[in-house]
Amino acid sequence: MTIFGNLLYAQSGGVTSVINVSAAAVIETAHTHPDAIGRVLAAKDGILGILNETLIDVTEEPAENLIALKHTPSGAFGSCRYKLQDPERQQREFDRVVEVFEQHNIRHFLYNGGNDSADTCLKLARQLENRIGDVTVNHIPKTVDNDLAITDCCPGFGSVAKYIAVSTREASFDVAAMASTSTKVFIIEVMGRHAGWIAAAGGLASDRETNIPIVILFPEIPFDRAKFSRKVEHYVQTYGYVSIVVSEGARYENGKFLSEQGTKDAFGHAQLGGAAQVVAQIVKDDLGFKYHYAIADYLQRSARHIASKTDVDQAYALGKTAVEYAASGKSGLMPAIRRLSDAPYRWDIVEADLTDVANAEKMLPRDFISEDGFGITHVARNYLSPLIEGENYPPYSNGLPQYVRLQNKLIAPKLPTDWNSKEE
Amino acid sequence: MTIFGNLLYAQSGGVTSVINVSAAAVIETAHTHPDAIGRVLAAKDGILGILNETLIDVTEEPAENLIALKHTPSGAFGSCRYKLQDPERQQREFDRVVEVFEQHNIRHFLYNGGNDSADTCLKLARQLENRIGDVTVNHIPKTVDNDLAITDCCPGFGSVAKYIAVSTREASFDVAAMASTSTKVFIIEVMGRHAGWIAAAGGLASDRETNIPIVILFPEIPFDRAKFSRKVEHYVQTYGYVSIVVSEGARYENGKFLSEQGTKDAFGHAQLGGAAQVVAQIVKDDLGFKYHYAIADYLQRSARHIASKTDVDQAYALGKTAVEYAASGKSGLMPAIRRLSDAPYRWDIVEADLTDVANAEKMLPRDFISEDGFGITHVARNYLSPLIEGENYPPYSNGLPQYVRLQNKLIAPKLPTDWNSKEE
Repeated sequence: MTIFGNLLYAQSGGVTSVINVSAAAVIETAHTHPDAIGRVLAAKDGILGILNETLIDVTEEPAENLIALKHTPSGAFGSCRYKLQDPERQQREFDRVVEVFEQHNIRHFLYNGGNDSADTCLKLARQLENRIGDVTVNHIPKTVDNDLAITDCCPGFGSVAKYIAVSTREASFDVAAMASTSTKVFIIEVMGRHAGWIAAAGGLASDRETNIPIVILFPEIPFDRAKFSRKVEHYVQTYGYVSIVVSEGARYENGKFLSEQGTKDAFGHAQLGGAAQVVAQIVKDDLGFKYHYAIADYLQRSARHIASKTDVDQAYALGKTAVEYAASGKSGLMPAIRRLSDAPYRWDIVEADLTDVANAEKMLPRDFISEDGFGITHVARNYLSPLIEGENYPPYSNGLPQYVRLQNKLIAPKLPTDWNSKEE
Repeated sequence: MTIFGNLLYAQSGGVTSVINVSAAAVIETAHTHPDAIGRVLAAKDGILGILNETLIDVTEEPAENLIALKHTPSGAFGSCRYKLQDPERQQREFDRVVEVFEQHNIRHFLYNGGNDSADTCLKLARQLENRIGDVTVNHIPKTVDNDLAITDCCPGFGSVAKYIAVSTREASFDVAAMASTSTKVFIIEVMGRHAGWIAAAGGLASDRETNIPIVILFPEIPFDRAKFSRKVEHYVQTYGYVSIVVSEGARYENGKFLSEQGTKDAFGHAQLGGAAQVVAQIVKDDLGFKYHYAIADYLQRSARHIASKTDVDQAYALGKTAVEYAASGKSGLMPAIRRLSDAPYRWDIVEADLTDVANAEKMLPRDFISEDGFGITHVARNYLSPLIEGENYPPYSNGLPQYVRLQNKLIAPKLPTDWNSKEE
């Protein structure tokens, strides 16, 4: 069944270095389905753009800008962290969404995000199908956390994994050269509050050809200070140096994060700090080794300059497939990566039901983590390696990558703005 | 005058992503001067390798490893932080160096380092010329701090500058997309304890085509909290977000570093922390904006994956020229970059006398910093831009850059090891 109308695309949650690749795929593919899709609109700042009726007419954008989207990190239309309230309590939000869809003849909605967005997407699908009827609502996966269910991996993750693996390898070469008289311990803090997928990628820095002593602190493995210090000491005695990859989600047996130190500054204010700093202090106090620490933070998820080609290809394919679902009248789905083989790496795309995705979280399997809890296994390597494969460099000018900023011309609003006085 | 003998090469101080390029240039160029240079030796871990007589015969290394040096970060022969003592007090060290040089027929010494190493190099030159006579001692510049005198720039700096400019641009795109409902301030801490060269490079992230609100905190400009907070608030009001580049050397009017907070942890221990964290706390306390912060640390100086081609070219040319000095019997020199024009960027190499380099430090000129102290001027841009120009990617395999580890086979020592009981 073909439904005809405009297509609305929106980006949600933490942005990545390849979410704009999915956006480009959506726009390019939509143009190949004139029977189902009229204009392509984008919501400014995710779901907020619908509620605020700040909609962008993507067809107004110069063609070269849309091409440049494929090598531009971050969310080109703006993102948001905003969760729709429960339908019973926040029926006004749904009423507003329905009004905006009707006013702008939107019959296809694609929401590009992670776990929370999948939930939002599912709620919207149910509402819109009930009230507008002929409409498709589908979800395009995206999250550096790699924790979405059904799909073998999530766009955004492969590039972060590559960045962390490359950076850990480079910094390990650095500390190895300094270790005779200076720094012996290098620490890098990586993202992943709930699961150790990104931390595991740090383990790829070491392989058969380039052996590097690496200690990984996963959120999944309760931090044991004595065991950790013994491991670090052992590596420094054996190799002269060690690199430590610590997840921001690393925690103690009692569930408390390493980063929650309850420390106060000179004025008695709670002191902010990261897990890396706590680990550094432990290395200093327990072992006395000179250390350095880095906190990758946004650098890791915006590093389009070192994106994984696998990741870029999958981000594109998933955006394209989501449009094909819309064009063929399918709704309530998320295109998901299915792995067919590790080596050579082969994958295809399958339909995942949003109900199976929305309230699930995929954790790092225990068999990805070595028995002592400080490293990754061959199972993890077989899974992770293909995801960082291939380079996909952006164009440069004057020594800097040329990332595009879209014009993002807003469509004149048609509705009153006072739909929700609490919001205004 | 041609002096014949073996050539000894050593790496010193903090390593960089291109110091091995200079090493490769030394080795390749030495082979073209068989009239002056016999074997090429390298000292393990800098000057320590001479004192400990841990010398590497570079000719034993497979040719492909030497080629791979050109794309491998860090110091392939090991580096050290060790300053020779004053000659009167530590005559034993010089005696040892002379003995090692004589035993291994070393007549040419090239020391690849920064300020401290230039001083060591000069002292050694004087001693060796007095005691061995026909010997050349020259210095190859290297420092990410970019603070060596005479030379227009220092190998290692251009690649760090590129890394910081690229990373600041990427993270700024990220925070811009998040700012409507979440993070509004992104902070990146960069190296440069004494001078703001690297911090200035963060300003390159913004240019005419890609305007980004950036606040830079230079070591040269005393930190004024009220003025800083006003600037940050202004940018957030105007653009919705802001990026802050803070030098690790940023300090208050009284000279105290921002990072010295005198804070204590729960056990009363002095709390470690960086400038980024202090700036984050100020943003939170004064303005209440949500922030994220990254600490680039070793990642910035080991990021061979995004090295500047200008930097790579200059690192090679300087290593090559230093060998040519040696081959023609010149001593006490450092090849220095001379800038002939900004655009198009043209440079050549001139001879700098080590006495002019050894005890000087080149600070960031005030006219590189904007009047309000938070940005860079066109003068700075004209200087910095050519230094980050061009990409020079390493080869990849399985998604990771292929960096080489040399075999570093040691030559059998010929001297007793108990030259300095305090050292053993």
